[in-house]
Amino acid sequence: MQDAQHIERAIALARNAEGFTHPNPMVGCVLVKDGAVVAEGWHKGPGQEHAEAMALRLAGDAARGAVAYVTLEPCNHHGRTPPCSEALIAAGVAGVVYGLRDVNPLAVGGAERLREAGIPTRLAEGRVRTACAELVRPWVHTLKCWRPWVTAKLAMSLDGFTATTSGESKWITGPEARQRGHDLRQRTGAIIVGVGTVLADNPSLDPRPEGREPAPSLKVVLDSELRTPIDAKLLTTPGVTLIVGHEDADSSRASALEDAGAEVVLLLGEGRPDIKELLRLLKERGQNDVMIESGGTLLGAAFDADVIDEVWAFTAPMILGAGRPAIASKGRTSLANALRLEKTEIEKLGQDTLLRGLKKRSAH
Amino acid sequence: MQDAQHIERAIALARNAEGFTHPNPMVGCVLVKDGAVVAEGWHKGPGQEHAEAMALRLAGDAARGAVAYVTLEPCNHHGRTPPCSEALIAAGVAGVVYGLRDVNPLAVGGAERLREAGIPTRLAEGRVRTACAELVRPWVHTLKCWRPWVTAKLAMSLDGFTATTSGESKWITGPEARQRGHDLRQRTGAIIVGVGTVLADNPSLDPRPEGREPAPSLKVVLDSELRTPIDAKLLTTPGVTLIVGHEDADSSRASALEDAGAEVVLLLGEGRPDIKELLRLLKERGQNDVMIESGGTLLGAAFDADVIDEVWAFTAPMILGAGRPAIASKGRTSLANALRLEKTEIEKLGQDTLLRGLKKRSAH
Repeated sequence: MQDAQHIERAIALARNAEGFTHPNPMVGCVLVKDGAVVAEGWHKGPGQEHAEAMALRLAGDAARGAVAYVTLEPCNHHGRTPPCSEALIAAGVAGVVYGLRDVNPLAVGGAERLREAGIPTRLAEGRVRTACAELVRPWVHTLKCWRPWVTAKLAMSLDGFTATTSGESKWITGPEARQRGHDLRQRTGAIIVGVGTVLADNPSLDPRPEGREPAPSLKVVLDSELRTPIDAKLLTTPGVTLIVGHEDADSSRASALEDAGAEVVLLLGEGRPDIKELLRLLKERGQNDVMIESGGTLLGAAFDADVIDEVWAFTAPMILGAGRPAIASKGRTSLANALRLEKTEIEKLGQDTLLRGLKKRSAH
Repeated sequence: MQDAQHIERAIALARNAEGFTHPNPMVGCVLVKDGAVVAEGWHKGPGQEHAEAMALRLAGDAARGAVAYVTLEPCNHHGRTPPCSEALIAAGVAGVVYGLRDVNPLAVGGAERLREAGIPTRLAEGRVRTACAELVRPWVHTLKCWRPWVTAKLAMSLDGFTATTSGESKWITGPEARQRGHDLRQRTGAIIVGVGTVLADNPSLDPRPEGREPAPSLKVVLDSELRTPIDAKLLTTPGVTLIVGHEDADSSRASALEDAGAEVVLLLGEGRPDIKELLRLLKERGQNDVMIESGGTLLGAAFDADVIDEVWAFTAPMILGAGRPAIASKGRTSLANALRLEKTEIEKLGQDTLLRGLKKRSAH
């Protein structure tokens, strides 16, 4: 029970840096002695100290004899910072409780190293282990898969439309839902839109979470013919803008966009850049958690390529009867092949509903 | 506070007869003396005693000096039963608290008659008044409008489809959602489907609520060419089946269906029976609370005719990308003309979500 409480605190600490740690995982650590918290730490981002290192630094001599509660098995490798296993041994901690085995092949082995040094280690109990796994789900996914974790954000009427037949879309969902959408932008490292969204809405694409410092995201525009205007708002907001065109695109447009501050990458694809190529590219750039916040065409392409891992569906209590579909696809003929969600959570946001869920991977 | 509690009890009593009272309203009554409940009553259906009459009968002499709490103002007319106002006066009650003024022009005036007889009457306080109004909303609507209250039931994927592109539809929503749908069938007096649903699913269309006696509904099939098979399951379940064809339909088909136990009515309409004509007919037959539980074509016709008053939308956490739309309409070009819902309630039913709401009638 005590274990669970300390690990839960460590999870909350880890989330202090939500959106800032990519490509690293969020990690939190609590040092406890005689039932009292001695120090707390969390990983703030690439090149910065690990959660354990921060907690040990703040604890100083008080770390000796304390038990470390960490959301992820302490690392065992010299990366940009020294191994946490060695730091914990040097500090003389009495034990280590962790929420998830490390799956990074470069860093694994921390618990074993600690045990060799005579320090008892163990995994936390069930429920909090699940919460620790959730904390780093996209990071774990990307270590094991050729592409980042992909979250599709939908904002639509009850009958699945993002705009009326005449294209009117402002606003279907209300301010509470739109604000909640910023939490997803904050969490993910890259926000992907299609050029249609840029031309129609001129979005700024920066996370604006309530009461928190925004974590700048990579802003990605899928834009075959490089039609993004050079005065597009997203070119002026924090974070890098990556414009992904088709290999046949006009090179003078590419230069103009680069002059306006964007990075331009041209990809292969049938008529337009291939979504899978884009995701491979994003993984290479260290992205493990990306979101698609676009019209139906790009979301349809992601759906057809079967690369959607998570869905955030904001639904307004409104029926349009027809219009622009949230996901424009040829569809799947059989229910067995539908994209089914599990671990769903429902939130009421003003008049709207948010349903979040993960792609169900088991067979039926 | 005491008032609210007694009126809430009266509401619960009224709901004992949910689905059985059409075309009458559900009404409940509690007689209270010295803070204790003396007797309870509710209206069971047409031709049966009113709620007040049942409570007075059970109370006998104990009614003298009691306060009657009633969900609806006592009636003042000789209908199929004598006026409740007179019965309350004769029983010597000390006062009457009611939750909603009667709006039936034939029955109104009960409170005034009681006051003339020296019995104090008053309306209950705010929140319970609202609950009393909800109890009889379809009945009030039908008194004031040319047609019954119409509830649209949708059962669809997250992106608004009721079947895959190949027509597979069993099952999108799960057993909990389907069971909850029976509560709506129980409440309403008529269940309207299109012949397409009959041909595809051969539904029995009877309410099968959990742990309650089913209230047989009028089963209505909109069937231009009278294609309903004479061995259709719905012809064998409790309640009357009304098959509504187009005036050009084949009369031999009509005879065959009548021989199989159905009533057949032919209506005007462009190619198919007009939904408004159907609703007028249903009001004439005493229906004040009907539901449409059909495929997208009929629901689309109801949406286009703007006759949907309430929506029960069951949504499965599943994306199909394309398929048969829940509402097949030409749509509305402007968001200002969308069918917006208010007073929404969300329930999680297994993996599915039910969103219920009423058509918003105010301007934006």
